[in-house]
Amino acid sequence: MTESAYPPISDQLEELESAQEEGRRKMDWATQHMPILEAVREEFVADQPFEGERIAMAMHVEAKTAVLVETLAEGGAEVAVTGCNPLSTHDDVSAALDTHENITCYAKRGVDDEEYYEAIEAVIAHEPTVTVDDGMDLVAAIHEDYPELIDGIVGGAEETTTGVHRLRAMDEDGALDYPVFAVNDTPMKRLFDNIHGTGESSLASIAMTTNLSWAGKNVVVAGFGYCGKGVARKASGQNANVIVTEVEPRRALEAHMEGYDVMPMAEAAEIGDVFLTTTGNRDIIVEEHFEAMKDGVLLANAGHFDIEIDLEALSDLAVDTYEARDGVEAYEMDDGRRLNVIAEGRLVNLAAPVSLGHPVEVMDQSFGIQAVCVREILENPDEYDAGVHDVPDELDKEIAEIKLAAEGVDFDSLTDTQRDYMGSWDHGT
Amino acid sequence: MTESAYPPISDQLEELESAQEEGRRKMDWATQHMPILEAVREEFVADQPFEGERIAMAMHVEAKTAVLVETLAEGGAEVAVTGCNPLSTHDDVSAALDTHENITCYAKRGVDDEEYYEAIEAVIAHEPTVTVDDGMDLVAAIHEDYPELIDGIVGGAEETTTGVHRLRAMDEDGALDYPVFAVNDTPMKRLFDNIHGTGESSLASIAMTTNLSWAGKNVVVAGFGYCGKGVARKASGQNANVIVTEVEPRRALEAHMEGYDVMPMAEAAEIGDVFLTTTGNRDIIVEEHFEAMKDGVLLANAGHFDIEIDLEALSDLAVDTYEARDGVEAYEMDDGRRLNVIAEGRLVNLAAPVSLGHPVEVMDQSFGIQAVCVREILENPDEYDAGVHDVPDELDKEIAEIKLAAEGVDFDSLTDTQRDYMGSWDHGT
Amino acid sequence: MTESAYPPISDQLEELESAQEEGRRKMDWATQHMPILEAVREEFVADQPFEGERIAMAMHVEAKTAVLVETLAEGGAEVAVTGCNPLSTHDDVSAALDTHENITCYAKRGVDDEEYYEAIEAVIAHEPTVTVDDGMDLVAAIHEDYPELIDGIVGGAEETTTGVHRLRAMDEDGALDYPVFAVNDTPMKRLFDNIHGTGESSLASIAMTTNLSWAGKNVVVAGFGYCGKGVARKASGQNANVIVTEVEPRRALEAHMEGYDVMPMAEAAEIGDVFLTTTGNRDIIVEEHFEAMKDGVLLANAGHFDIEIDLEALSDLAVDTYEARDGVEAYEMDDGRRLNVIAEGRLVNLAAPVSLGHPVEVMDQSFGIQAVCVREILENPDEYDAGVHDVPDELDKEIAEIKLAAEGVDFDSLTDTQRDYMGSWDHGT
Amino acid sequence: MTESAYPPISDQLEELESAQEEGRRKMDWATQHMPILEAVREEFVADQPFEGERIAMAMHVEAKTAVLVETLAEGGAEVAVTGCNPLSTHDDVSAALDTHENITCYAKRGVDDEEYYEAIEAVIAHEPTVTVDDGMDLVAAIHEDYPELIDGIVGGAEETTTGVHRLRAMDEDGALDYPVFAVNDTPMKRLFDNIHGTGESSLASIAMTTNLSWAGKNVVVAGFGYCGKGVARKASGQNANVIVTEVEPRRALEAHMEGYDVMPMAEAAEIGDVFLTTTGNRDIIVEEHFEAMKDGVLLANAGHFDIEIDLEALSDLAVDTYEARDGVEAYEMDDGRRLNVIAEGRLVNLAAPVSLGHPVEVMDQSFGIQAVCVREILENPDEYDAGVHDVPDELDKEIAEIKLAAEGVDFDSLTDTQRDYMGSWDHGT
Repeated sequence: MTESAYPPISDQLEELESAQEEGRRKMDWATQHMPILEAVREEFVADQPFEGERIAMAMHVEAKTAVLVETLAEGGAEVAVTGCNPLSTHDDVSAALDTHENITCYAKRGVDDEEYYEAIEAVIAHEPTVTVDDGMDLVAAIHEDYPELIDGIVGGAEETTTGVHRLRAMDEDGALDYPVFAVNDTPMKRLFDNIHGTGESSLASIAMTTNLSWAGKNVVVAGFGYCGKGVARKASGQNANVIVTEVEPRRALEAHMEGYDVMPMAEAAEIGDVFLTTTGNRDIIVEEHFEAMKDGVLLANAGHFDIEIDLEALSDLAVDTYEARDGVEAYEMDDGRRLNVIAEGRLVNLAAPVSLGHPVEVMDQSFGIQAVCVREILENPDEYDAGVHDVPDELDKEIAEIKLAAEGVDFDSLTDTQRDYMGSWDHGT
Repeated sequence: MTESAYPPISDQLEELESAQEEGRRKMDWATQHMPILEAVREEFVADQPFEGERIAMAMHVEAKTAVLVETLAEGGAEVAVTGCNPLSTHDDVSAALDTHENITCYAKRGVDDEEYYEAIEAVIAHEPTVTVDDGMDLVAAIHEDYPELIDGIVGGAEETTTGVHRLRAMDEDGALDYPVFAVNDTPMKRLFDNIHGTGESSLASIAMTTNLSWAGKNVVVAGFGYCGKGVARKASGQNANVIVTEVEPRRALEAHMEGYDVMPMAEAAEIGDVFLTTTGNRDIIVEEHFEAMKDGVLLANAGHFDIEIDLEALSDLAVDTYEARDGVEAYEMDDGRRLNVIAEGRLVNLAAPVSLGHPVEVMDQSFGIQAVCVREILENPDEYDAGVHDVPDELDKEIAEIKLAAEGVDFDSLTDTQRDYMGSWDHGT
Repeated sequence: MTESAYPPISDQLEELESAQEEGRRKMDWATQHMPILEAVREEFVADQPFEGERIAMAMHVEAKTAVLVETLAEGGAEVAVTGCNPLSTHDDVSAALDTHENITCYAKRGVDDEEYYEAIEAVIAHEPTVTVDDGMDLVAAIHEDYPELIDGIVGGAEETTTGVHRLRAMDEDGALDYPVFAVNDTPMKRLFDNIHGTGESSLASIAMTTNLSWAGKNVVVAGFGYCGKGVARKASGQNANVIVTEVEPRRALEAHMEGYDVMPMAEAAEIGDVFLTTTGNRDIIVEEHFEAMKDGVLLANAGHFDIEIDLEALSDLAVDTYEARDGVEAYEMDDGRRLNVIAEGRLVNLAAPVSLGHPVEVMDQSFGIQAVCVREILENPDEYDAGVHDVPDELDKEIAEIKLAAEGVDFDSLTDTQRDYMGSWDHGT
Repeated sequence: MTESAYPPISDQLEELESAQEEGRRKMDWATQHMPILEAVREEFVADQPFEGERIAMAMHVEAKTAVLVETLAEGGAEVAVTGCNPLSTHDDVSAALDTHENITCYAKRGVDDEEYYEAIEAVIAHEPTVTVDDGMDLVAAIHEDYPELIDGIVGGAEETTTGVHRLRAMDEDGALDYPVFAVNDTPMKRLFDNIHGTGESSLASIAMTTNLSWAGKNVVVAGFGYCGKGVARKASGQNANVIVTEVEPRRALEAHMEGYDVMPMAEAAEIGDVFLTTTGNRDIIVEEHFEAMKDGVLLANAGHFDIEIDLEALSDLAVDTYEARDGVEAYEMDDGRRLNVIAEGRLVNLAAPVSLGHPVEVMDQSFGIQAVCVREILENPDEYDAGVHDVPDELDKEIAEIKLAAEGVDFDSLTDTQRDYMGSWDHGT
């Protein structure tokens, strides 16, 4: 195995033992509320489907992800894991994970850019047979810097919209050299993770960072994809007046037909109280918008990267900046207006000081799919060419059925007559 | 041209002139609220894209559809049209359409089965070059009984979920011999027609047929496809307590995660006050369910065919049946319970006496797509093989943009930087 | 008894028998869905609390009210009844009521002003001991023209917000000479009748009159009292974008905090698609507003009187008016804009051609209170001085309990410990 | 002045200076988002209405309350303040307040019972002329132990439902010896504080304490008063399935008619995932309920006192208890089920570790009323007898108008014609 100088978390932390205990306590709570992974883990422990495999992971290392990491490890894999965002790691969870005999964890909160990439290289140095990404850092680094490893990689899985988007671009360029499941694109992932997960946790994070209310606020949601829909719907459910900005006419029309105000950001900037970007694109809120905003507005981002709010331009405009609250940086304009940026414009439901990331149950569904995708690529490697693959419907349904059973929700089955009917076309009015 | 003995509506109606006037007044109202078709019609009148073509249509003949029929006719086509449901025709609108020099209309309300199919044959006798269906009656009849016409047909368009479902089954069997656009499957059609159209108009039809309230009612929605979602959401918005039944685990889970009660129909039957089927499948509410229901329940269907509620079984169970109200047939059980079936279990937003079908604006969007699909198949016939085709995204977007412009809703455009970013994948965290 | 020349409905109708049958069928349907009145009727039939009393009623005479009229009659009263709005009477129901041996019914649809007041006088000629009003026509006429009857009147009950408002003004002037229960002001009445009843039925009436959709529409609701709240909430639940106008700062703030847009009518006029007045006040939409409106807007009123939309001013502005649809009068402006007035600006959920009035269940609650109020005033006449009286809480609770029992809804009771706690104040943190 | 040995916070804290700075920073944030108090403060600074008065306060001492305390102090009063709940004090805010020359602050987090009451006595030792309570601790202590001070007290104001409830009981016993404004009972307070404030902040506190989701959860809300309505509505807006328990039939019916499931707690206990008590009464969730609950449920209280969940009984049932997370105590049953109690059953939006109390804007409204009530009682002392008084409507409206102006929301005014109409009753149909 290639050597890497970068040490696992256990070699970096002081007061390691108490961190491990605290991390374990967090993981226990998550485990209690992740019935899907619990069911999958039982199966994996019995079947050992990952015997002899090496799984490399770059994920937000906190309690919920840790349950996925353990689930894979207990299926027999050797797992190496690091963070996918310098601010989202919980060091205690990282430390707790690192105690598992099959797991090496390199994630540490607050590392600088150099350390961040060293940790990714340390994970890659384990010479993975499978990669699991949240933002395609591993896929990118392997293709760019370690192409010699690609032959040994059976496949991968990618968690986010943004990562899948970039993978598809790479695939179209013919530059993706092994199969990767687009976990993000499953109905399960989109509906539950993006709509309920991003929606609920972004709003709760902002509320608990600012102590402000949603009722009667003009909340500007940039983007009406699944994340934007989630944020809009949940904000509406807290009695906010939601304004949507979009660039795709059908989504703009969809938002309009649901009763939201739709307008260009240049107009929304003048009336918004809170701005939430969810587009996955860059430069959504820029200089001209900052100049039009009211005093005291809140700016936050629920997209993967911190490129949606142009903080550089905002800094240039500001005559002063200061920490108004934990997790809130105030930018004071020369006319006295204060624009408050939450969590440095990073993914707000992960990066704000109080943030806990997606709700446990939502990640349970998302990670359940990840787990069965890893099983699938290893069981049926020949069925998947290099490139981006949709998650097979049967896996998605398997997870839904596990979840419904865990919630005690019963539902109907097609009768034979109904099944025949669905397949027939030769009858009249 | 093949001859058909079946006469157009003008030869069937007494008091023809007043019917024509009334029909025209209905069409005028619709036209006022159909800005998409209005914009498309202007283009067609100028370009005459259908010069020399013969379009056969089997649609619900009422005011809104009539605006589509006219729009196609004014694009230069000779149009022959009949109904797709014996109860949904408005004779006055049918008569008004028949006055147009390019249009022959055979639709008549309340025809029997034999007449219904004679009218379809009369339409087919025009030897169409294009078919436009709502339930694939024309496609089915042509393939079964007039295969010799297929060579002359450039293509078709199908409006409903059910029709598309049957066409796909036919396509998979290799039995569909010309290209048909699945208009139903566009995002525009599904979101607006199914969710808003079916949702709003089914509930309003039931309310205005029964004079009953939704608030506090247990409303059982069978199926959580687009129609079911629409009915569930709108009923919830009228303060009903919505219960969903499903057979697909992901849809069942989606409904559960949105906060609806999910359960098998056998359980729902015991507590429901109103039952609405939206599945497109048969035998959704059957004998065992009737036996479990409370006194006074309402039963209605929002799916295409009247096969979802097993009325034969209900008749067998009943000791008496009588018309409780216009559009409501009461079935009295031997224990005194009365089960009230609305509009004979036919598509409730079309077949109830007060029903007006989908809202005008919703049909404007749906028919706008129909119109540009007909244009597309005639402009680019070589691009489409025999089989079911998705509506090209660009057509769908074209309609969305026309609608937003008509509503005065402005939205953002991607900047060049953003467009580049969406296509790139080579940047870091 | 004073004589009156005005004849009961039975002496006015042709084809009386078929009208009676049709009216009875309508009443049967209502009775099935009015479990509260059913329970009250059983009690009245057994106790005969109104033996020897004469009850005068001026109400919207349709199926639901008829069940109240019968309930009072079966409690032993002689009942004389007429309409409270020339457009809301169903002649068939009126005829069916008139067949009851204890009931004389004078209500007829479409009477002119003179006949309307003659019918009121005919009712008063029965020399009532109790009056039941919907809009205080009886109270007003008796005080103005028949003061000699007041000594014989034990008390009355008033159904509407507007009527109660006028009675309170009269009471403050010292001009109300017998006790009247303000049925409108009970929590039950306000919450269910105004919010659910007015909300649901106004929207359904407009939808089924116009065949238009609510989704994405700017719906301007004038007034944020109980009726306005109901309309706003239900319109929001159909995915409209609701705009509220108000004159009371706390209600304006309440609407704002619920996420609605709040603005003056002069601004709302420019962007509204549908306007619904619910204020109970006059001149809510006037000339300056008509001038600002978009082409094709809908104007409707859900307040008691047709004074909220200034139709006189609208007529003066119009260059042409015509019936655009049954129940829709179009006013064409000189710049071509068409403003569509629904049901002549009268109470839209009663006066539109398709309208059925409030939902049956909602009126069951409201009329249940009416029935026990009449019982109360006759059982305890000495407890109520001349003037407006709130409905005693116990009556209101009695009706709620009857309804919950009928719906099969069980709820908790206070334990003795809890009851003690609610009355104590001597304990610490 | 009476002497008290209990020291102000400044004499109790180490690292006082940094605490003062941090407290000031928190207060600055609050001040930015409290436009009502800002407007009121400007008026008070100019008018000095409290010159020579001594105001005693027992409130939750955190940033928002601190702005009220300062506002009163800057109106010229000498203010002495302590906490009203041992867990709700922020020591840094307390320290910052104590630096104001007119303010002495005794509140300290985590004091024991003895210290808690000593601090109350220390406040009373300032011999107040006005009391401001949140839970009537000051009123109770003064009446019980310092009756000699009552002659010097002009009046008071009480913030909470529970406090007002107890004051009314005291008043009915003839035991309340000075006038107290029931700030809780104003429309403003109820609608915004209880519905939006309690609703939003309770749910956000629970979400951020547990990292769990609301979507699809069975959330049992005990009590359907204003707080219960708020919690139910906001939970529904996060896609929870809400179940309501009640003892008052009209509230039970109201909840039922809004589409919520209503049932006794004994039934709800079996299916609930989260339980939230909002009744203000005791013993809402007791032994029989604990025994029926599912594994992993969450139990929280949003009522004033920690008496709604019977933790003593729960402790007796448990075989083990441990801290599952910060702010979550797990009670393990002998059958392995774990019941998780949040914030020790205390007011969850104040007492959970992450909690920040009500949103700033909501408290701005509530405290705005407090401020003008104190002004009112001092300006017009002779108009208020001993006993509980409703806040005069004009004060409530004054605050609403200040708020609307601050939010830039314009609204209509009655015209003279309309005002006349509202006062008249002498016109017909």
